[in-house]
Amino acid sequence: MVSKHTASSGLFEFLLQMGDNCLVLAHRNSQWCGHGPALEEDIAISNISLDLIGQTQLWLELAGEVEGAGRSADDLAYLRDAFDFRNLLLLERPNEDFGLTLMRQFLFDAWHLPMLKGLTQSSNKRIAEIAEKSVKEVTYHLERSTDLIIRLGDGSAESHRRMQSSLDELWSYTGEMLESDDLDPALISECVVPAGDKVAEAWRQHVTAALKLATLIKPESDFVRRGGKNGIHSEHLGFVLAEMQFLQRAYPGAVW
Amino acid sequence: MVSKHTASSGLFEFLLQMGDNCLVLAHRNSQWCGHGPALEEDIAISNISLDLIGQTQLWLELAGEVEGAGRSADDLAYLRDAFDFRNLLLLERPNEDFGLTLMRQFLFDAWHLPMLKGLTQSSNKRIAEIAEKSVKEVTYHLERSTDLIIRLGDGSAESHRRMQSSLDELWSYTGEMLESDDLDPALISECVVPAGDKVAEAWRQHVTAALKLATLIKPESDFVRRGGKNGIHSEHLGFVLAEMQFLQRAYPGAVW
Repeated sequence: MVSKHTASSGLFEFLLQMGDNCLVLAHRNSQWCGHGPALEEDIAISNISLDLIGQTQLWLELAGEVEGAGRSADDLAYLRDAFDFRNLLLLERPNEDFGLTLMRQFLFDAWHLPMLKGLTQSSNKRIAEIAEKSVKEVTYHLERSTDLIIRLGDGSAESHRRMQSSLDELWSYTGEMLESDDLDPALISECVVPAGDKVAEAWRQHVTAALKLATLIKPESDFVRRGGKNGIHSEHLGFVLAEMQFLQRAYPGAVW
Repeated sequence: MVSKHTASSGLFEFLLQMGDNCLVLAHRNSQWCGHGPALEEDIAISNISLDLIGQTQLWLELAGEVEGAGRSADDLAYLRDAFDFRNLLLLERPNEDFGLTLMRQFLFDAWHLPMLKGLTQSSNKRIAEIAEKSVKEVTYHLERSTDLIIRLGDGSAESHRRMQSSLDELWSYTGEMLESDDLDPALISECVVPAGDKVAEAWRQHVTAALKLATLIKPESDFVRRGGKNGIHSEHLGFVLAEMQFLQRAYPGAVW
């Protein structure tokens, strides 16, 4: 298939994907602030939000530069509507219980880390720098989420049940991360982004091993829900944006 | 206490109270659309939302005229922030289960109807007309909510338990409806609004009789949570407005 994107619009779209993933997951995690099941977890998940917001800032700032239309990271975060967001559907899923929140984090971290590791080798120096900084944080995110899904999966009957049902509920949302889409070939051939199949393979290995230790059963269905990377979102993103963007929408141009 | 309001700013505030009560409760009820426990209830509660939105339109349109600053009903509904809203705290409470939603509706309807009946006698002809139209709708709202809290209060052990706990949870929010506040005296002396104690007495009689039939115990606490009528709101109103106002905030001036 011939790419409909030129390399530079493809690059803009890719940077939005990276930034929007961080932004939407950060917002979801921030909704736990003050509501975590234990103080330690409350602080941890809020800190992960802060890491992801910092990464969002870097990705969207670069996206704005690449686009060349004068939009800042804040403009991109707060003044786009849902159909211009490029995050994975997985990340806009509601938090529900803490088990589902953790499983969502784990499934994403297991993709995020190998993707960032690949990006540290990017031919685009700015991307490589952002990835280098992010890898340190996301290494810890994955370590933590892996540890927790193993402890809870292989924990009490109730925690096992919740983790299995979270995995079953989210499984169909994982395919979208692992699929190549029509903007990748140009970026890959220019060594801007790593080959998607290598990232997918690293994801599968890590997830398979962790689920085994967690005594959780990998769902067999290979049905894939997709759309987020192309701006086709669930209703949930609209509510996320309504909350997240209220201040800039109601008080345009407000600054600290 | 000397009123800090002139009669006309007092009138504006009063009209905002009437309109904002309808608007915020309508939004809360609309969140049940497609999620009701039975098709009949889903349709009923959505229809009540529509009635209340219609009433909002009338109250806020008049409020805008009285203010004389050129604001339309839409401007007042969609472009004010929380501190400019004058609705009762009771009405911004989250829906939680259907029992709590019904109890909130009942406690409000039991005030809304006698207030509207009083307003049909208002010396302000426009107010009397709006009240006349609204009374027909709200008579039905109160009939329905009274019927349901009796059936559920005097129903199964589980439905009784839920209705009692809903009543206990919401009780401290009812005082705000029944209290006079510093804008009333001028409006009452000009016969624009009915005397608050008459409305409160009608509320007490109706509520006491209905709770008895519902086998529910009226809480003894007389602690009153107040603030909404003066623009001091709970965090919940911010989330209501973020959702409700998103379209006009993101697409200023958008029309059908």
